[in-house]
Amino acid sequence: MAAPKYLTGDAAGIKEFIDRFDVFLFDCDGVLWSGDTVFPGTAETIKFLRDSGKQLVFVTNNSTKSRQDYKKKFDANGISAQVDEIFGSSYSAAIYISRILKLPAPKNKVFVLGETGIEQELESENVPYIGGTDPSLRRDIEPADFAAIADGSALDPDVGCVLIGLDFHINYLKMSLALAYLRRGAVFLATNIDSTLPMAHAFFPGAGSTGAGVVKAYGKDPLALGKPSQAMMDAIEGKFKLDRSRTCMIGDRLNTDIQFGIDGGLGGTLMVLTGVSSKEEILATDAPTVPSAYVDKLGDLIGK
Amino acid sequence: MAAPKYLTGDAAGIKEFIDRFDVFLFDCDGVLWSGDTVFPGTAETIKFLRDSGKQLVFVTNNSTKSRQDYKKKFDANGISAQVDEIFGSSYSAAIYISRILKLPAPKNKVFVLGETGIEQELESENVPYIGGTDPSLRRDIEPADFAAIADGSALDPDVGCVLIGLDFHINYLKMSLALAYLRRGAVFLATNIDSTLPMAHAFFPGAGSTGAGVVKAYGKDPLALGKPSQAMMDAIEGKFKLDRSRTCMIGDRLNTDIQFGIDGGLGGTLMVLTGVSSKEEILATDAPTVPSAYVDKLGDLIGK
Repeated sequence: MAAPKYLTGDAAGIKEFIDRFDVFLFDCDGVLWSGDTVFPGTAETIKFLRDSGKQLVFVTNNSTKSRQDYKKKFDANGISAQVDEIFGSSYSAAIYISRILKLPAPKNKVFVLGETGIEQELESENVPYIGGTDPSLRRDIEPADFAAIADGSALDPDVGCVLIGLDFHINYLKMSLALAYLRRGAVFLATNIDSTLPMAHAFFPGAGSTGAGVVKAYGKDPLALGKPSQAMMDAIEGKFKLDRSRTCMIGDRLNTDIQFGIDGGLGGTLMVLTGVSSKEEILATDAPTVPSAYVDKLGDLIGK
Repeated sequence: MAAPKYLTGDAAGIKEFIDRFDVFLFDCDGVLWSGDTVFPGTAETIKFLRDSGKQLVFVTNNSTKSRQDYKKKFDANGISAQVDEIFGSSYSAAIYISRILKLPAPKNKVFVLGETGIEQELESENVPYIGGTDPSLRRDIEPADFAAIADGSALDPDVGCVLIGLDFHINYLKMSLALAYLRRGAVFLATNIDSTLPMAHAFFPGAGSTGAGVVKAYGKDPLALGKPSQAMMDAIEGKFKLDRSRTCMIGDRLNTDIQFGIDGGLGGTLMVLTGVSSKEEILATDAPTVPSAYVDKLGDLIGK
């Protein structure tokens, strides 16, 4: 495998690289910003690529926000973006459930472990759901719950799918309910399985971690619909009619973003060092995943 | 590997089997009882073995109860047992921390993800701890928490160990704190890593599942001090001075109880079918773990 090319400070190399693509797929957290901190030069770089006629798609595994929520975040940070350019793992999951899984009603209810972003996207696809942000489930488990979950009286017989995403309100009661639905045969899906969430220059548990208890208890992995799942790439290609050979994935994680681009047969991948994966990881001789090129930060593409 | 012998209804086979041992190690949940339901014949079987001069040790991975708590459960169910005969994974963890790990003070504080059983056993070994049942951590994570965990101001600089056990009050805040301590170099221990907890004739998330989020986010497994860890067997042997060749482990789980007995080189293992593992699993031609013998339920040893 060719060694990744380091482009920071290499104006000619950057131009040659950008010219190879018509479409750029961007990861968001760790690339554009970390939590509430936008990296320097982000807005200008996005504007530059847009002014250069590039199609931009923002591909995020963060399931806590809907596309509408994300649009607000872009606006607040002075980064131009349209709702239709945003492709999140909650949206990806909702599309998969409504258009591919197509469980027959009434047994098509989804039990959600996650936040409002998932609920909004399920609603946009008219998928019925329970759980999620339901305040009645944000409490301790009680002895009566054990009995009612065990005998099924606490369960909705119409649940045919369990969908796990990043859940800041994960608790034992919700884990127990999800496990019970799965053991009764519900289809097991995840918006994404990122192990960590970069926030405030540190790492917090990601969707793959808040959902890990259910996975461990059930003993089987969910079908994940975020990066690096190619179900998400197929959905993006279907929506944007992109030429994969002229498309570049930009991300901060080797095992999700960069792997996603490589598995999808994209023309190139670009890694930024403002997020999860380090320079050491990509330059290691035994690195399982290597990007085409890398920069210290996104803004380096315009020398900012 | 020899096929396991089925002893239910085989009085001669049972006598021959029991005569081979001086010591019986019992798993509790799934063997003596399931949650609050005691299996028929349990108390009589325990009495019979005791009257036959056998040494009994109750070896449980349930970390939510201390030995004192367990004693009360035995009493309430009419099963004779002494506190000193009870050996739980919380006790095993507390002993490991105080007598083997021996972190130098003041950096010897333990951050606990678990219930009061762990706290009581740590106290009995004079191990300082935080977390656990602390009510101030039983709340949602707030934006300020992300910042304070990231910059370390929310962290106790004296924490040198993270201990995870079954936590009915697991939440995102506690997971985030545990992850932060681990990333700062804390030793990572678990009372046990059972994936499920049998309750009310159903399965609920076990310690391995409530702790799975931290394991996934950190990317490394803890040292587990419950079954099948041989650290627990060594501690039991040290305390009870038993002859392993004359000792039998009785349990309901192939991958914890039976594996624990086999790895420990015990003279025999007996499986009961009142818990997690099924007859099909032990009789499968590719079963990785096989007991010496099995009965439908513990009471079958006395034909009850």
